[in-house]
Amino acid sequence: MKEDVFYGKGMVHVKKDYPDIYDAVVKLNEAAFTGSVLDYKTQKLIALGITAANSDDRAMKKQMMSVMHEFGATKDEIVDVLRVVLLTSGNPPFVKAMKILYDVIEE
Amino acid sequence: MKEDVFYGKGMVHVKKDYPDIYDAVVKLNEAAFTGSVLDYKTQKLIALGITAANSDDRAMKKQMMSVMHEFGATKDEIVDVLRVVLLTSGNPPFVKAMKILYDVIEE
Amino acid sequence: MKEDVFYGKGMVHVKKDYPDIYDAVVKLNEAAFTGSVLDYKTQKLIALGITAANSDDRAMKKQMMSVMHEFGATKDEIVDVLRVVLLTSGNPPFVKAMKILYDVIEE
Amino acid sequence: MKEDVFYGKGMVHVKKDYPDIYDAVVKLNEAAFTGSVLDYKTQKLIALGITAANSDDRAMKKQMMSVMHEFGATKDEIVDVLRVVLLTSGNPPFVKAMKILYDVIEE
Amino acid sequence: MKEDVFYGKGMVHVKKDYPDIYDAVVKLNEAAFTGSVLDYKTQKLIALGITAANSDDRAMKKQMMSVMHEFGATKDEIVDVLRVVLLTSGNPPFVKAMKILYDVIEE
Amino acid sequence: MKEDVFYGKGMVHVKKDYPDIYDAVVKLNEAAFTGSVLDYKTQKLIALGITAANSDDRAMKKQMMSVMHEFGATKDEIVDVLRVVLLTSGNPPFVKAMKILYDVIEE
Repeated sequence: MKEDVFYGKGMVHVKKDYPDIYDAVVKLNEAAFTGSVLDYKTQKLIALGITAANSDDRAMKKQMMSVMHEFGATKDEIVDVLRVVLLTSGNPPFVKAMKILYDVIEE
Repeated sequence: MKEDVFYGKGMVHVKKDYPDIYDAVVKLNEAAFTGSVLDYKTQKLIALGITAANSDDRAMKKQMMSVMHEFGATKDEIVDVLRVVLLTSGNPPFVKAMKILYDVIEE
Repeated sequence: MKEDVFYGKGMVHVKKDYPDIYDAVVKLNEAAFTGSVLDYKTQKLIALGITAANSDDRAMKKQMMSVMHEFGATKDEIVDVLRVVLLTSGNPPFVKAMKILYDVIEE
Repeated sequence: MKEDVFYGKGMVHVKKDYPDIYDAVVKLNEAAFTGSVLDYKTQKLIALGITAANSDDRAMKKQMMSVMHEFGATKDEIVDVLRVVLLTSGNPPFVKAMKILYDVIEE
Repeated sequence: MKEDVFYGKGMVHVKKDYPDIYDAVVKLNEAAFTGSVLDYKTQKLIALGITAANSDDRAMKKQMMSVMHEFGATKDEIVDVLRVVLLTSGNPPFVKAMKILYDVIEE
Repeated sequence: MKEDVFYGKGMVHVKKDYPDIYDAVVKLNEAAFTGSVLDYKTQKLIALGITAANSDDRAMKKQMMSVMHEFGATKDEIVDVLRVVLLTSGNPPFVKAMKILYDVIEE
């Protein structure tokens, strides 16, 4: 199974205590990221765009770290995603995402 | 300037009656889709993912038609975007988007 | 009690079948629009901004009609609200709201 | 497998054209509604509350019809859900949901 | 009046400085949770589902603590709510809610 | 150009590293807040209403500080905005916004 950025601390508990939910999430992740045409990295960038558009700090940060560390995405690639966030979702989520991006890079 | 799917009926009025807003939107579109690394088609797929995640029927449909007709995106490419929507945003926006996709294809 | 744009068809049923909910909604409306400093029209424009930002077609249209017909708001005043929507919430809700505005005016 | 309100027209295509996604959605539904403590009907009412809070017309209507026809939920039970929507999500989604409820009942 | 989890620190100020708003919120809470058919605990679980679906950390945590401490809801009952969140709203709000749940339990 | 509350830490980086995006945001801000009829302060209050309705802590706080410090908005004016948030968006964003308001005032 492909490694998944979503498997944070919460999922450790789920795996142990609620294995049926865990199995469903694993299957869901496989179906989500086993694109037939788009590659995994592009799909990850789409996931980043969606979480950034929702102003979800934690999910956004996880996605950024995952796509940079697992897929070698560059700062410019992520900014290209955030350009679309600016257009479709407005200035506040864009500024928040840019701040998180620079925080992640400087960490 | 790159053609833009967002320039629907509403924007015709804006161009005529509020040219300063129109100019800002044009500039915003240029900044959004002039990615330095990702190509325009990929950015359009990201825009589609964001609008589909928001369950926005009209914007979603426009984006699908634009990316299919202007960029030759295939059904499978769009489904690969919607897989990510299912994971990040749940079943209702996914089902809605699949329905719109099949409607667009069959039109 | 101040007239309220929200009292659409749904509320007629609520008043008859669920008077306790109706009373709570009336009281909520009174508390909402009895601003101590801002006037009612300004508060209505704020309500319009919020519903437009949420891309909620029906609520947006109701708010536009209410603020135009009850408070004499002009097209330019509404566009000034929608400028803020463009900045804070992105292009899709802005375009949708502009389209609804022109539909309302031309009706 | 439990019958599912979400399996609308869109899912028929998914089952035929994208069986891996279909399987994941089925597994997801099973994990979602196989509550260990709450009964299925209560979980359906929760799903209704969430979709109504999101002002999602189509999903809301589907959920209402499902919970009424499959589980015998009464109008008053649904209104009890919508009371919570009014408190947590404001008047516009509440009024919209009440309108849809009365439309569904009168159909 | 029923005790209400929403009455946090913010509401203390509201009660003192803006009694008309406070009265409206009290009345709104009474109308919301005085379900005619569903019991109060079920309505609380619905409120939890809605706030969890919105990824609202603070409101979610408040609701969890309220429903566990005031109504004796168990971990499994809350997980049954979150199963529905996973299905209707996707993986990020589900994972976030699971993390908060385990934090609350371990506190 | 009018000073803008949105130009936080993130925008400093944008200005230096992505001047084309920066220029687009500047132009967007000018178009947004150069209302032809409503004054700048009223537009700021609308922006506050929208960000508060979205439960976006950081953007909300920035907007409150901006409108209070740059435009001399009073606590009561901001509460008049939040009354509309309570009605249109429910109790959780209202309570969150009231808490932030009192935090800002007491800082």
